[in-house]
Order: sequence, then structure tokens, then C-alpha cells
Amino acid sequence: MANTRIPVGLVGVTGYTGMELARILAGHPGMELVRATSRSEAGRPLSSLYPFLSGPGELGRMGALTITQPDPADLAAACKLVFLAVPHKTAQDIAAALIAKGVKVVDLSADFRLRDKNVYEKWYATPHTQQALLAEAVYGLPELYREDMKRARLIANPGCYPTSAILGLLPALEQGLVSASDIVVDSKSGTTGAGRKAGVGTLFCEVSDSFRAYNLTRHRHTPEIEQEASRLAGEAVALSFNTHLLPMNRGILSTIYTKLARPLSLAEAHAAYAERYAAEGFVRVLPAGQLPETRFVRGTMFCDIGLAVDERLGRLIIVAVIDNLCRGASGQAVLGANLMLGLPEDQGLHLAPLMP
Amino acid sequence: MANTRIPVGLVGVTGYTGMELARILAGHPGMELVRATSRSEAGRPLSSLYPFLSGPGELGRMGALTITQPDPADLAAACKLVFLAVPHKTAQDIAAALIAKGVKVVDLSADFRLRDKNVYEKWYATPHTQQALLAEAVYGLPELYREDMKRARLIANPGCYPTSAILGLLPALEQGLVSASDIVVDSKSGTTGAGRKAGVGTLFCEVSDSFRAYNLTRHRHTPEIEQEASRLAGEAVALSFNTHLLPMNRGILSTIYTKLARPLSLAEAHAAYAERYAAEGFVRVLPAGQLPETRFVRGTMFCDIGLAVDERLGRLIIVAVIDNLCRGASGQAVLGANLMLGLPEDQGLHLAPLMP
Amino acid sequence: MANTRIPVGLVGVTGYTGMELARILAGHPGMELVRATSRSEAGRPLSSLYPFLSGPGELGRMGALTITQPDPADLAAACKLVFLAVPHKTAQDIAAALIAKGVKVVDLSADFRLRDKNVYEKWYATPHTQQALLAEAVYGLPELYREDMKRARLIANPGCYPTSAILGLLPALEQGLVSASDIVVDSKSGTTGAGRKAGVGTLFCEVSDSFRAYNLTRHRHTPEIEQEASRLAGEAVALSFNTHLLPMNRGILSTIYTKLARPLSLAEAHAAYAERYAAEGFVRVLPAGQLPETRFVRGTMFCDIGLAVDERLGRLIIVAVIDNLCRGASGQAVLGANLMLGLPEDQGLHLAPLMP
Amino acid sequence: MANTRIPVGLVGVTGYTGMELARILAGHPGMELVRATSRSEAGRPLSSLYPFLSGPGELGRMGALTITQPDPADLAAACKLVFLAVPHKTAQDIAAALIAKGVKVVDLSADFRLRDKNVYEKWYATPHTQQALLAEAVYGLPELYREDMKRARLIANPGCYPTSAILGLLPALEQGLVSASDIVVDSKSGTTGAGRKAGVGTLFCEVSDSFRAYNLTRHRHTPEIEQEASRLAGEAVALSFNTHLLPMNRGILSTIYTKLARPLSLAEAHAAYAERYAAEGFVRVLPAGQLPETRFVRGTMFCDIGLAVDERLGRLIIVAVIDNLCRGASGQAVLGANLMLGLPEDQGLHLAPLMP
Repeated sequence: MANTRIPVGLVGVTGYTGMELARILAGHPGMELVRATSRSEAGRPLSSLYPFLSGPGELGRMGALTITQPDPADLAAACKLVFLAVPHKTAQDIAAALIAKGVKVVDLSADFRLRDKNVYEKWYATPHTQQALLAEAVYGLPELYREDMKRARLIANPGCYPTSAILGLLPALEQGLVSASDIVVDSKSGTTGAGRKAGVGTLFCEVSDSFRAYNLTRHRHTPEIEQEASRLAGEAVALSFNTHLLPMNRGILSTIYTKLARPLSLAEAHAAYAERYAAEGFVRVLPAGQLPETRFVRGTMFCDIGLAVDERLGRLIIVAVIDNLCRGASGQAVLGANLMLGLPEDQGLHLAPLMP
Repeated sequence: MANTRIPVGLVGVTGYTGMELARILAGHPGMELVRATSRSEAGRPLSSLYPFLSGPGELGRMGALTITQPDPADLAAACKLVFLAVPHKTAQDIAAALIAKGVKVVDLSADFRLRDKNVYEKWYATPHTQQALLAEAVYGLPELYREDMKRARLIANPGCYPTSAILGLLPALEQGLVSASDIVVDSKSGTTGAGRKAGVGTLFCEVSDSFRAYNLTRHRHTPEIEQEASRLAGEAVALSFNTHLLPMNRGILSTIYTKLARPLSLAEAHAAYAERYAAEGFVRVLPAGQLPETRFVRGTMFCDIGLAVDERLGRLIIVAVIDNLCRGASGQAVLGANLMLGLPEDQGLHLAPLMP
Repeated sequence: MANTRIPVGLVGVTGYTGMELARILAGHPGMELVRATSRSEAGRPLSSLYPFLSGPGELGRMGALTITQPDPADLAAACKLVFLAVPHKTAQDIAAALIAKGVKVVDLSADFRLRDKNVYEKWYATPHTQQALLAEAVYGLPELYREDMKRARLIANPGCYPTSAILGLLPALEQGLVSASDIVVDSKSGTTGAGRKAGVGTLFCEVSDSFRAYNLTRHRHTPEIEQEASRLAGEAVALSFNTHLLPMNRGILSTIYTKLARPLSLAEAHAAYAERYAAEGFVRVLPAGQLPETRFVRGTMFCDIGLAVDERLGRLIIVAVIDNLCRGASGQAVLGANLMLGLPEDQGLHLAPLMP
Repeated sequence: MANTRIPVGLVGVTGYTGMELARILAGHPGMELVRATSRSEAGRPLSSLYPFLSGPGELGRMGALTITQPDPADLAAACKLVFLAVPHKTAQDIAAALIAKGVKVVDLSADFRLRDKNVYEKWYATPHTQQALLAEAVYGLPELYREDMKRARLIANPGCYPTSAILGLLPALEQGLVSASDIVVDSKSGTTGAGRKAGVGTLFCEVSDSFRAYNLTRHRHTPEIEQEASRLAGEAVALSFNTHLLPMNRGILSTIYTKLARPLSLAEAHAAYAERYAAEGFVRVLPAGQLPETRFVRGTMFCDIGLAVDERLGRLIIVAVIDNLCRGASGQAVLGANLMLGLPEDQGLHLAPLMP
């Protein structure tokens, strides 16, 4: 690839979002990964961590990169933009240090997603030390904040579940098709969503051939979904958001139960969705009557949406699926970076689903 | 095993419920499988269909059984009770023929579950030809109809999804803890629930590493759940029941969203459930705060139930899991047969979960 | 169950073999688990570790058992026999302490499998401190050592891979059908074989939808297989044993490549195998031309064997499958305990495969 | 993409290799899919068969393509090159008809892989009707036949298993490191290798959580491997090739057992492999001591190779992995087409593995 690619860095390379970012950047014509940091793995080549980063071409070049300690000065000297793929709380100060040195930041953690400091501190049980930045950060969902993202110094990359829930609810709330006060979001995620940290609970034999709910009524993505849903509805929305763990690697499917504000046919609901997303490259409203499957978006940026209207009960049921690592994390982060860097929004993101 | 076991038959041996019935009967001290029928496989030994039915002991004896054509006269001559594991519509007339000859019947199809002929004909789009039997059939959920089951000639074995949904809702509706008019049942099933018929949609590579919703708003188990929920609530219940396909073999998890009729703590809700099921051997109400997993009931008769109360939204969320083939089909059928034959309800059904 | 069951203990309850032992003992009419120990979990009820051990009956009774520290005096006071499900090296001294107090021991670790102390110390890189016991220990494969097992104080429970390899090779080597100097055992195991310790390498997302070889040429089960193969062949056997990790929970399949000592038809090879195992309750030689599948033995004691003769190349290929946790570990340990305690060999072990 | 892309066609779009070809061509800058045929699906848009082919961009354009009947005249009028993804026997005459009209052909079936008509007819039990073309066809493995492929009118795309086996054996046989008369290839394949035809044997619940061997001693890929191995060894090679079915979607791992012709260290063996493949873009010889995993090549063109030397037994064990659909079928076919069309060999094929 050309030497004119923009140099970028990745802080926190050992998790699945870091891994996915490497995959996407390996095929990106406009950015070049020049720094990858990890406190625990510094000094090793990236390929020793990820043996699949080898061979001729960009994969091998990336694999030859030596992992470094996360040093803001070094990152600022080498990179125009840095992706933060570290846990919430850790990200706050790194983001501030980098921005202070003139580096743009896409933060994949939850640290800058909630505009209200108090809400953050309540749900994440930790103080927020960068209130000014919090006010400035742009929530990185292009279908809602595209223009703001272009001007941002700091993008708060949306959570995986919220991406599916907000995109699923968006046209219905924006257009007042459904009641804002009676929404249930029943979400199911592949196990990459649980992260790459060793633990008995996510061992193959504990997850395989089983299914379970977790964090009912208290998942930390709740306030993030409510924040954006409230903005869309023009009123405070409190909704029931609940999560489940799927015995598969990638993919989130959210089944969203709403009550129609007025009688509406499937054709009408479908038309509203199709129109709202007609100009959006990464949302696909399926033909009426068709339902999405997580495999159809595997490894891609698409959010696929299917609709059902229950005329008997006056309900609109929305099914939204995404790839939690790509659209739900690293792919969306690259889209944000594209916008911040003045590159075409979809550059490097025309990924076809791996089927099967 | 003793020669005094009661001879039973199985009509329709080629599907997963037939296979599961063979597994359970192989360890049952009170019944002996003496007939297994299949139109397509008649003449072959059962072991040629199921190679795992071999070896010394009961497995091998069962494997040596020659599959026969489903002939009511022959079945009646040989068996005291017959399990029907054939599709709905097919079951009606076989059931009638057998009962006319004095044989007891447990029907695993949907043919005798809906008390209202019109409801059956609407949802299943086929006429019901055995209206008298329909009136007589007992819905085979022991927690609701134990005494009736003991006296029944014909048991309509509950559907897999309904078993989880009804047991999940039972105490809440019976005691009026929740509103009967705002219930959402979001169910997820392992792929054995889709049956054993060859089809592209259930090939390994179409199901593996993916997840999807299906039959939204129009699954045929809806009227069955509503029928029993209405009886429990003492008023007509219409609820939203929707289903998903899990990339795993066995297990159903239903997440049930209700609205509290009055404020209720988790401790109170838990106490109500624990008390209602205290004497039930096959329902386990988990300690408050704990949620069930399908693997904990794999291969068993247990329905495990976990609860969450969302005080913010005034909701009770119930999570109920079962093994769809055992509690949701063949195991529950054997329990029904035990009751009809005067055997202990739990005979042959003390199955421990296969973990992992 | 009757009060006359023999009290037994389990040292090391947190791993998959401990979990499997609990499952099997829950249905065993002749033994009662009265002690379960774990250094890290002592003080908790077993059900807090394994939520599936609850409900009425034996599962719930077992779940109510309080986990204790592994104290030989306490174990000896309470138990007639103890199962050791701890890592090799740890087992040696516990075994000695228990036997000194008159308790019978089934050791599921590798500590007493290799008769030659030097071979043990070379492959396991640790000293053996109980040489006298090593001389006395009986290798717990009933098809080879049934009579010795009945008289044993200490049984060395065979390894999972060796169980499949030795049973696969047994008739061929015993009868000199194949060359003893050119054997390749290509084995594949489900992931429970890797244990229940937290580690990135066995996380769901690292194992799922992938396959890999490991420990080529240097798996520690090599000398164990060679020890028994040499005894069967009547000459020193050195063979190539290599292992792979399967994206599934349970099951080992070993494909064994041998060279025929003289021309032999499939029918002849099959007859030799069928005859050798005719009286064995837990080995099933499949009909000629049929090959085993791990699911056919899931949760059972069976070793299923299929054969192929390659007349073009003069080869006999043997495929042997077992459930690595049941026949390959805890089930075989219970069989050994049955023999040591004077119970019927197969008591509590008539387990039907969970299909699917 | 530019309008100057070369128009190509695909005969047989309903299987997994057709699906994979669509995925790869969707990102190929030099070819455009302008025809997709299927006897059973003609008249429908491709997106109705594959809902994931939708959205803006190339995926949507491809999805809008109307499936046609496989008419050689139409194909020849529209396409410079056609991929045949139909069963063997069917491919022969279509290939001939297309070539007669001046269209280049890459045949993904087995019809033109075996140079000896008699060998073909023996193993495939059907006559070969295109003997002249058989003589002309080039076996499409670039590491062996790159120059011939550039000049070919007809490429016989290698089988999936043979690709892994031949690339694994290549340096060892070419350089005489191992005996040519004692080779065992133990191969394991993901279930996409079994095709997309409905059948009970490949249903999710029959494959999931299980493992089995199949076609021992008589898999049809045997003569193909032997043909190329013989050429590499300079002598007739007869080897033992045997196959297994993995509970996963994509990937083949072949464990290849050889006997060293003379003592050789791992370092020496590794050097020989590394040198032979140094200039090859799609073969990665892993660092000595490291073993490949199928996930590292998921969705890519790489063949990853790991080596082990057993000095005790004088054996070289080679582990070769590929993605059976990409390197083992459609990706390799596109590489062949690139060469035939004068495009860069690796155009459109710099695919990064989807991890996890």
C-alpha cells in the first residue's frame, strides 16, 4: 500500500476489539498501524501474540510491529489518531493526555458515552475525572452524529448492544410510531462480547451447547440506550434492557418489543424504516416479512433490521443484528476515524460477510 | 430388568422425540418398549437406525427390536399404552383407533392440546376429526393436572415452549402478582426443536455460529400458552410469544417480561415461587439472584426458574429453562404414562444433567 | 436410596472429572458420596459450585454437602474408598496417607500408571516418592486387569487417550495381527480433556469453530500406551502418538494406523475383535463396515470400535471412541471402585448415550 | 469499482463454493460477476437465495443479478471466463461447450484433475467423455504449475483435501527427505466440505458436539494426492489417506505422518520448508515449534504449515491447514482465473483471517 497512509496507534492490543482492529486496518488503504501497545506484552512482536499476523504483505508487516508500553509522548510523536481499546476508567486519562498533545482519539470504552457525569458515576461506580472532555466528546454513531463526528477531537465509540438497540429503535422513536414508555429490549450476544480475559465462566466447555441470561435489569449499557432513545423520542425514555450469552463467537441480535402509538400495517412500518435508512450505507432494512440472522453480517459493518407487526396485540417487534466486534466496536471505530481524518466514511469498510 | 414391566409402544420412531423416548425407556424399570413403528423404516432393526442402541443390556435389547408398520390392532394386542410421536393431524385418528381398542395413549403432537376445536383449526389450518376425544383429553402438565392425568385415557403432552412459559408464569398468574394483559415471552430453543427432517435450513453450516428469530407473532404454540395462562389468571390472556433458534442441540430458555400488579420485592416474588413449587419434584426455583442455564437441565426433567425484579420499571422478569426433548417432550410423556399406569410419577425420571 | 450404601469420598471436586463423578454417583445405588474436598472451595456447599446439584432426591442431597479441606484422617474416618481427582504429583502422598489408614483409593491422576519409576520421572519431570505403592498399584482397565482390580488397595485409573488407544489395539496386538513396530495413533479430544482451569487458550472463542494439533511427539500419555501395548505384543513397542483439540465438549476418537502382519480380510479382522470383546459389557465392536461417532458414547462407559482394512496397502485401521470424562476418567474409576468394594462391576454404570 | 473489470460467470451458484466465490468476487477489483446460473433457481434474484448479498455497493449489485439457466451460448456471449461449481460428471460437457466457444474455464469439480482417464473412471465410477480436454487441463496449484496455469484454457481446480496434503508433502518429497512408501495422511474437515445438500447426516444436531471418521481407505481424493505426490517423489506413491468430519464450518487440518529417509533435525526440516516456500505468498511456514490452527487461515488463501520431528522414531510429522472453501476451492479458483486472465496472481485475494 502507498506510503501516504495516515499513521495511527492502538492502545490495548490484547483483547478481541484490538484483534479486530488489526484485521480491519490490515485492509485499510488510508491508515497504517504504527503503534500497538500493551502493558503486559510490550517488547514482543505482534505476531507472537497473534500468529495469524504473518506472511507477506500487510498482515506480515503488522505482525512484525513491536508491542510498546502505552506512552502518550511516543504515541503523539508517531500517530495522528489513536484508538483506545482499554477498559473504562483506564481510558479517561489516556484520552486526555493524547488530546492535550494534539492527537485525535477514538475511545472504544464506555468512558465518554454518557453525557451526564452522574449517570456515568452511578452505573460504572467510579469517578469521572475528565468532565470537560466528556462535554466535548461525540457519540460515534454515524446515522445520528455524522457531521459532529467530522469535527470531533474525541469520539466515544458506541457500545455493541446499544448500536443494535438504537439503530433498531431509531425510525420508530423519531417518527413517534411507538410508545416511548413501554419498550423491552431482549438482546443476545456471541461470546466475544465477554472479552478475552481468562475466566472459568467463558471457557469453551462452560459456554458451548448452553444458553443463559445475565445482568438482567442492570446491564451497564442501559443508560447509554436510554440516553439516545430519549433524544430520539423527545422525552425521557426508561426501558427494560436485558442480555443473554450465545454459544457462538460473533454477533448480537436484539429483539425489541414496542407498542404501536396508533394502528400501523407491516407495509407502513417497513416503509418508514426503509425511507429513514435509504441513504445509509451500513443499515439494511430487509424486505418486509424477512428476518435477519447474525451470520449475514458476520465480519461486516451492516446492521440488518427485520420487522414484524402484531396486529392482534398492537405491537411492533423489531429485530436488529450486528457483528458485535465489527459494527459493534472496531469497525465503527474505524468509521469514526475515517470521518475525523477526512477520509471517505466507508473507506476500508466494504467487508463482505463470511458465509458460512 | 424384571419381566413384569408394562409393555408399551412408540408410533413414530425416527424423530428426535422418538429417539429421546428410547433413551429414557432404556433406563425405566416399569415399562418395556415392545413396539416401535415407522412407515418408512419398517422391517429394519432399531439399531440400524440408531447405532447407539447396541451392546449388552437394555440398549442392545431395544436395538434388536424390529421396526413395524403402525398397525392399531397389533399395537393393541401387544401394548397397554402407546406414545404417539408423529406430526399433528396424523395423530388424531391413530389415537382414536388405539383408545377404541382399550389402549392408553400419550400424544406428543399438538392434536389434543387445544380444548377449543376452532382455535385448533385456525392455528393448524386443518380440521379436527376427533372432537369427543378432544373434550376428554387431559393436558399433561403434572403441576396443573396431576389428578386428571391419573384417570386419563388420553394425555395431550404439552409443547416444549409452552412447558417453559406456563411453568414460568404459573405462580405469578395464579397469585395475581402481575398484569395479565401485558406479557411478552421471548423464547430461544436449541435446534432439536426443529425436528430431524432433512432440510437446508437446519444443516450444521446454516445454524452453527449464527442466531435468528423465526415465526414472530405467529408461532403455533401461542394459543396453547394463552389457553393455560388464561385459566391461571382467571381472565382471557393474549400475550406476545416469539421464538429464536439457538446454535446448540438441546434446551429452551424463555425470558418472560411482565408488569407487576403491585410493588413487590425480589424476596417476595421468590418466596411466592418457592412456596408454590415446594412440593414439586421437577421444578427448581433457584436461589434469589441466581439465573438458570440450559446446561443445568440437559437431559433431565427439571424446569429451572430464576427471577429478577426491576423496581425502577415495576417489572418481574422470569427466566425458565427446560430440556426441550426431555421435560419438553419425551420425559414429560413418560411422566404422564407413569401416572396413567399407576406407577410412581417420577419412576425412571431421576436423570442427572450431563455436565458439561 | 438405601442407607446401606458404602460411603466414599472425592478429593478434588472442582474439575471436570470431579463434576462427572458427582453425576455418576448421584445415580449409583451402592455408593454414597459423603466427602468432597477442595483446598480453594472448602466451607461452601457443593451446590454453590455446581448449581445443577439441587432439587429433591440425590442431586439435592449431594448439593447440600459442605466442601471440606482434604484431611486424610477425616476422610479415613468417614469413607471406605476415596477417589483422587487432583493433578499428578499431588496425588502420590495423599494416596499413601489414605492407604496407610486402611482406605481404598482410586487415583485418577497419572501418578501410579507407569510401573517404571524412571519412565514416570522422565515424562513427568518430577520425582516419584511412593515407589512401594507404585509396585502395588493396579492399572484399572477391566478388560486387562479385572481380577487384579478386585484385590487392589490402589487402582491407577487409566488416562483418557490410553483407554481408547489400548482398547483399540488390544485384539490386534494380542493376536499378532499387526506389526508392533509401525503404529501411529492419531487422537482427537473434546475440550473437557483440557481441564477446567481458567486460561485464554481454552476460552470459548479460542476453541470454537477451530481445530488444532498439540503436543506432537511428546504427549505424556505416550509411555502409558506403550507400556500396555508392549505387554500385549510381548515385545517392546514404540509408537507415534499425537493429539488434537476438538471444538466440542466430550469425546475422544483415536484413528489407529497399523500394518498387517499377514494378509487379512475385514471379515477376519472383525471376527477377531468381536470374539475378543464378546463377553465385555462396555466394548462394542460395530458391524463390519460401520464406523463409530463420539456422540454414540456420550455420557456412557462404552468404547465403540470400527475397523477398516486397506488391502491395497496392507493396513488395518482401527477407530476407537470413548467419552473422555466417563469411560476415560470418572466412569472407569467408579467401575474400579465397584470391583474393589465387591459390588457388581457394572453397578450404576448402565448409562444410555445422550442423543443428540 | 471501475467499469473495466473483466466479466465472468459462475455455473452452479447454490452450493458453498458458489457462495464463497460470490464473497470473493464482491471484493475483486479486476473481475465482475455478470452471470450466475442454477437449474433450480433460475429467474430469482441472487439476493433471494443469499439475503446477505444486499445493501449499497458491490454486494447489492451482485444480489440484484438474476439467476439464469446454464446456457453455454449466453455465458460465452457475456463472459470471458466461467467458474464451474457443479458436481463432477456434470462439469465435463459444460466445460467442453464453453471452451469450444472460446471461454476460459476454471472447473472446481474433480472432472479434470486426474490425468489418467482410467483412474478417473475407476474412482468416480463414471465414464470420462472429454479425453482431449483432460490431456490439456492444468492442475491449478500455483506452487507447482504457475507457468502452465498462465497459458491454460482449462484449469482443474485442486480438491480441498489434496491442496492441504500436497502442499504439506511438497518440500519433503521434492527433496527426498522422507520415504515415499510409508505415508499416512489423517485429514479432518469442517462440515462445509460435505456440501449444502439437504440430508439428515449433516443436520446441525447430527454433527454438533460430535466427531467421526468417514470413507476410510476409499476417499476419492486419494488418487489426486497420489498423482501429485508421485510426480514430486519421482516414483509411484501409494499412501493411506483418511478423512474425518469436524463440528465446525470451515477449515481442513491434515496431519501427515512420514518416515525420515535419513536423520534430520527439526531445524533442518524447517529450513527446507522455509526455503522452498520463501517466495510463495500464500504458504506460511510457521516458526519451528509452532503448530497451525484452522482459525488462523479462516476466510483466507493461506496454507499454514507446522512441523515436528520425532527423533525417537525417525519421523517427520507435517501439519497443514487451509480454509477448505477459500484456499481449498473458490479462492484458489480465483487465483487460477487471475493467472489465466493476465491479472496479478494475488489480486482480490489479500484476505485477512476472521478472528475469532
